[in-house]
Amino acid sequence: MSKREQPNRLRAALPRGLRDAAGEEVRATRAMLDAIAGVCESYGFEPLATPALEFTEALGKFLPDQDRPNEGVFSLRDDDGEWLSLRYDLTAPLARYVAENFDALPKPFRRYQSGPVWRNEKPGPGRFREFVQIDADTVGTASPAADAEMCMLAADALEAVGIARGDYVIRVSSRKLLDGVLDSIGVTDARQRLTVMRAVDKLDRLGIEGVRLLLGAGRKDESGDFTRGAGLGENEIELLLDFLQPQFPIDLLVLADGRVIHEQSPETDEIPDNEIVEKCGSNRSTIASLRELFDAKPYQDGLDELGEIADLAGVSGYSQLQICIDPSVVRGLEYYTGPVFEAELTFETPGEDGRTVRFGSVGGGGRYDGLVARFRGQDVPATGFSVGVSRLYAALAHLGRHEARKVAAPVVILAMDPDAQAGYQAMARELRAAGVRAEVYLGTSGMRAQMKYADRRGAPAVVIEGSIEREGGVVTVKDLIEGERLSGSIDSREEWTSERPAQETVRREKMVDTVLSCLARHGFGPGAGS
Amino acid sequence: MSKREQPNRLRAALPRGLRDAAGEEVRATRAMLDAIAGVCESYGFEPLATPALEFTEALGKFLPDQDRPNEGVFSLRDDDGEWLSLRYDLTAPLARYVAENFDALPKPFRRYQSGPVWRNEKPGPGRFREFVQIDADTVGTASPAADAEMCMLAADALEAVGIARGDYVIRVSSRKLLDGVLDSIGVTDARQRLTVMRAVDKLDRLGIEGVRLLLGAGRKDESGDFTRGAGLGENEIELLLDFLQPQFPIDLLVLADGRVIHEQSPETDEIPDNEIVEKCGSNRSTIASLRELFDAKPYQDGLDELGEIADLAGVSGYSQLQICIDPSVVRGLEYYTGPVFEAELTFETPGEDGRTVRFGSVGGGGRYDGLVARFRGQDVPATGFSVGVSRLYAALAHLGRHEARKVAAPVVILAMDPDAQAGYQAMARELRAAGVRAEVYLGTSGMRAQMKYADRRGAPAVVIEGSIEREGGVVTVKDLIEGERLSGSIDSREEWTSERPAQETVRREKMVDTVLSCLARHGFGPGAGS
Repeated sequence: MSKREQPNRLRAALPRGLRDAAGEEVRATRAMLDAIAGVCESYGFEPLATPALEFTEALGKFLPDQDRPNEGVFSLRDDDGEWLSLRYDLTAPLARYVAENFDALPKPFRRYQSGPVWRNEKPGPGRFREFVQIDADTVGTASPAADAEMCMLAADALEAVGIARGDYVIRVSSRKLLDGVLDSIGVTDARQRLTVMRAVDKLDRLGIEGVRLLLGAGRKDESGDFTRGAGLGENEIELLLDFLQPQFPIDLLVLADGRVIHEQSPETDEIPDNEIVEKCGSNRSTIASLRELFDAKPYQDGLDELGEIADLAGVSGYSQLQICIDPSVVRGLEYYTGPVFEAELTFETPGEDGRTVRFGSVGGGGRYDGLVARFRGQDVPATGFSVGVSRLYAALAHLGRHEARKVAAPVVILAMDPDAQAGYQAMARELRAAGVRAEVYLGTSGMRAQMKYADRRGAPAVVIEGSIEREGGVVTVKDLIEGERLSGSIDSREEWTSERPAQETVRREKMVDTVLSCLARHGFGPGAGS
Repeated sequence: MSKREQPNRLRAALPRGLRDAAGEEVRATRAMLDAIAGVCESYGFEPLATPALEFTEALGKFLPDQDRPNEGVFSLRDDDGEWLSLRYDLTAPLARYVAENFDALPKPFRRYQSGPVWRNEKPGPGRFREFVQIDADTVGTASPAADAEMCMLAADALEAVGIARGDYVIRVSSRKLLDGVLDSIGVTDARQRLTVMRAVDKLDRLGIEGVRLLLGAGRKDESGDFTRGAGLGENEIELLLDFLQPQFPIDLLVLADGRVIHEQSPETDEIPDNEIVEKCGSNRSTIASLRELFDAKPYQDGLDELGEIADLAGVSGYSQLQICIDPSVVRGLEYYTGPVFEAELTFETPGEDGRTVRFGSVGGGGRYDGLVARFRGQDVPATGFSVGVSRLYAALAHLGRHEARKVAAPVVILAMDPDAQAGYQAMARELRAAGVRAEVYLGTSGMRAQMKYADRRGAPAVVIEGSIEREGGVVTVKDLIEGERLSGSIDSREEWTSERPAQETVRREKMVDTVLSCLARHGFGPGAGS
């Protein structure tokens, strides 16, 4: 169909909940993914790339947050009449991949994968229907050491992208704990257990009193909508809340230099009070406190595993501030069977209502021993971690981390003389060879519009060679960043024209050196592109 | 749905025409995309990432090869009742993006984008329903300098990923030439013109005699299927074939050192005959020969543009062997309006029938001034180039280029003693800190299975610390690559056991150094991961 047969103009727009990313955001996202991939590689994880489309039945219905009604996957029928779906996470395709290649894979099998996932759901502020994740998973071992490795990997990944120690925490619990609590307080109905789990998962958002209502009769929100509760009795609710907010002994001192020491360690006496930033409970004491609450076997088993994870993290040099046992972590996904993790950024940021809030979750994961079993008929232990790349990008933008590695915009070579394209192209090549991004202006507009173009591109400099310059064997290099700065301090057009600030006319063969010093003045080294 | 409710096991498989990529392929593909992105950045192109899904009507029906019946896009209806489609290329989304952001974009607008595209078509050998492309496009200038830049960028991109000069050629023609030829020989019917264009596009595959049949009554293929031809007369066919294979004067000498000189240049006399590798026609003489064939205005205009492109490429240092004017280039896409490009790899490779054939096309592009007009109601000049990443990956694999930059598999720390996980994790951390990929074996199997695991992983070395080593403060580093080599030359189990070749027991604190020298012996420097 040519445009001439097209009677009406088309609407140039994207469907709701989909967006474009351009320029620095794409570069920064790529840099983040590269940094996290580097950490995964160093841990021995191998990259995998599965296609976006899978058989619908292979993906299954392991969707998170099933209480949102529009939650769903994008599905379609292909020419073979098969139902295909766009992946909604990177875990379901991994389960299919492992089942399909089970005998050929070394086990335990560690893989990482990054890429977009799709949700056919109602979009909202900050909630998109296509977004990028990066996941690391270990399949084929039930060892808590694999879970501990996930937590350490997550901490290393956050630091690799520029989140400072102290600005994040990997919170860890186990699905077995809540299972054991529910067994102990006599909640046996599967639906009621699910309702309790979802209520607990909202602790961060609703606070302890909100969760109390949802565990009991129910809760009316600000808009007046009523959510039915789990219907637990007073006593059961108290036991559950005690579990979620146990009284930990405070036995750790966090020092101004970042060290964490036990309050009974010999050093303690030598530390002046004003160097103690915070006191908190150690993972060991958290676990000891939790031990006292319930006797159910899954509960105590879960604590054993958390103990192993905490010990391994501890001896590997991760403090409680980085990897922290916290019984209130639930994670919405029903398929978790053991330890669950949540990566939270702890610095504060203005919330939607103006109050400062913690930045919050940028990823999470856990152990899911049943997922591969859908294909193989028997459990295959597996554990994994997923990072939400858009959330992390937003966090780094908030911290100003992207600024630091910004790439210089290209130097623009103005096309002053239409017949001199060859010479302009040669300049661009010389600059590129010296590691400078460079482009020739390829439009047909005059000098003024070309300068405006260069400004719009954010070009640090332009190179000007009109016919007079060419005859004289010279070029003019104009420093646009310095020019912009000076333009504030120069009063008249006359002054500007006569002084020609921030520009330099040099011999043609000095062009590359002159541009390089101009870039160096503004902190840009050579090195074109990414 | 838990696995217990799942009555039948699911089939672990991918739909036809979809595939997984793992390990080295993913790394090599990422390295290729990074290298090409680097070239795009150096030319001043900005990255863009559009979503996979667009409104179906926004993508339009600019599909290539419309004579394949199952050709199509994957489309679905979302919860809003809107028809969405997966992009089938990166050009249609760019047209939407430019139209949507027209006023905000600096013009000319240069962007590059990489990512998967989808085709709902019958898959075949080497033909997939999801594959990765990387595209560069310049929107907003009609200047042939922009087309020349595309060709130079494509040449630089191929060299950046490791295709040597001489192993590729960017072939260039213009849609205006064929248009002018058809005007001149009186083919005015739109359908007949399309049939001619498709016949010409098959020159590479069918040869000149095959095309002759398709231009006339038609052609019966090997399977007996008959394709109706364009129905041109003898005379018209001869004129067309003269155009496709004009007799060029041979005026260039290609020398053994890679230089290309004109046969009338003063140097020619000094060149011994055995240093002349090849003789060919120059772009200039090709264009001069073509000038004589037809007078039609679009034809002569097309040659003017090709002349500009050839001249700019020439003065920028690209020889005819890199960027070559060739009237037989057509490209299937109907939307091209001017110059068209084809990136072809010229080295030979075994074909499907055993005969050696040229590797062939890995990308192409051209000028499409009408695509943005679908949204804006007026033409916006644009030109672009697309590289097929899977084809390029296959080409580099054929050339052995991926081998050169292979990343070492991780060193495996054997878990000899279940209680010593903490110590093993510490070793892994030390190795990672020294830039070595390292992992602790996390399964429950014994020594023999652990060694088999390490072999399967391709580990260059394992680190062994059993309880005896630990008490002695030592570890054993086993060089698996050397061990594999030696295992061929050692005859008996006794000899092996007593000599313990390719392994070294060292003090624990020497572990990192010992592993580093082992890796260095096999050419692997430090630097974990990508």
